[in-house]
Amino acid sequence: LELCSKEMKRSDLIFRQLFDTSGSSTYTYLLGDPASKDAILIDPVLEMVERDLAVADDLALKLKYVLNTHCHADHITGTGAIKKLRPEVKSMISRASGANADIYLLPGEKVCFGERYVEVRATPGHTDGCVTYVSQDNGGMAFTGDALLIRGCGRTDFQQGSPETLFDSVHSQIFSLPETFRVYPAHDYKGRHHSTVLEEKTLNPRLTKTKEEFKSIMDNLGLPYPKKIDAAVPANMVCGIQD
Amino acid sequence: LELCSKEMKRSDLIFRQLFDTSGSSTYTYLLGDPASKDAILIDPVLEMVERDLAVADDLALKLKYVLNTHCHADHITGTGAIKKLRPEVKSMISRASGANADIYLLPGEKVCFGERYVEVRATPGHTDGCVTYVSQDNGGMAFTGDALLIRGCGRTDFQQGSPETLFDSVHSQIFSLPETFRVYPAHDYKGRHHSTVLEEKTLNPRLTKTKEEFKSIMDNLGLPYPKKIDAAVPANMVCGIQD
Ligand SMILES: [Fe+2]
Ligand SMILES: [Fe+2]
Repeated sequence: LELCSKEMKRSDLIFRQLFDTSGSSTYTYLLGDPASKDAILIDPVLEMVERDLAVADDLALKLKYVLNTHCHADHITGTGAIKKLRPEVKSMISRASGANADIYLLPGEKVCFGERYVEVRATPGHTDGCVTYVSQDNGGMAFTGDALLIRGCGRTDFQQGSPETLFDSVHSQIFSLPETFRVYPAHDYKGRHHSTVLEEKTLNPRLTKTKEEFKSIMDNLGLPYPKKIDAAVPANMVCGIQD
Repeated sequence: LELCSKEMKRSDLIFRQLFDTSGSSTYTYLLGDPASKDAILIDPVLEMVERDLAVADDLALKLKYVLNTHCHADHITGTGAIKKLRPEVKSMISRASGANADIYLLPGEKVCFGERYVEVRATPGHTDGCVTYVSQDNGGMAFTGDALLIRGCGRTDFQQGSPETLFDSVHSQIFSLPETFRVYPAHDYKGRHHSTVLEEKTLNPRLTKTKEEFKSIMDNLGLPYPKKIDAAVPANMVCGIQD
């Protein structure tokens, strides 16, 4: 048993963070279990599917599940395109998202790949169906989607957005994680790749404020209408392109 | 002593990979020692200096050295701008580069920050002065500049380039590292963040070839004249903007 647990520790998670170079600045995450070669992919982008599959193939990984953190409004998910190319892959999204997928996730559930898993945490507020996927590997990682960005957060003025709900989600579900856990967001527009729970708890200019101040900030962002929302949301409700 | 070595292992390297969103697709690397807070920055880009210093400041790091892997032709280094803002910072580049810096590095030397260091390996061929910085942290990391890119390598048709020299550099200085070492290049144009020595030894479409085939590939790339070379190289010979 002692040997077994050491063995498990020795085989580190295979982990790749991938950036959408086609314009949406989305991060896609590939997580693989070296023993079984089972892998999951979080938030793939339609235009980058070929790249994503090449990275997985080069590492000899067997892609098992494609997960979305939420129904994205800024890009079309690669989920449908991947399922077309790899019919054995199953798609996953939260039940609360209302979007189509092979498997609907509920808070507290674990998505297993080999000896590893990510845990589903409900973090609504940017959309009703937003979740954060939490891994215990690499000292702890939270894939926060648009709920928590590096020194920011997703907007709350579309797609059932609610600043109060988002504030509560981040504080109860993400800031409650150990402070050393890394935060891996769905986007960064300044070329930063990750942050930590401690950093966001202490330095996030929005989420270090009171709930009332946070609501006031979010209600007064004055952002333009999302460019791709009218095309992206209907497509993402059915897993992206899937003719 | 036993306790001490455990203590050292517990305090992981502070590490951030940062992407140039202004157009050159350059990766800048921040490495910090958590005990002393001493830090180094590899290959900063002029347009991203403010971002880089903010990331270091947020992590309470004391920037000690700015290192360049070589005299870049595709962007202006942020080195001079950082030295202007933070006069205590010293710049470093290889002696063989012929470029100006506060400290000139020779192969085999170690650049120390706190309890940690990166080792200088000469990897000429893209330019005469190209070096790879090797860290023993995080299971081993090689910052390869343009000598070795993910599934590629830097061009050899400008700046004293030589395919034969580059082939020998990569094989003797990078492929000789443990296969699990991560490869962190100066650029990637497909949104990939790192690779491993094993991957490049087995999957790099150029460097898995014979030296003769490699030379033939490199001599027939037919690439356009580098857009920024006439502005970037003279500036980088004197550490970037430094009026
Ligand atoms: Fe979103
Ligand atoms: Fe270069």
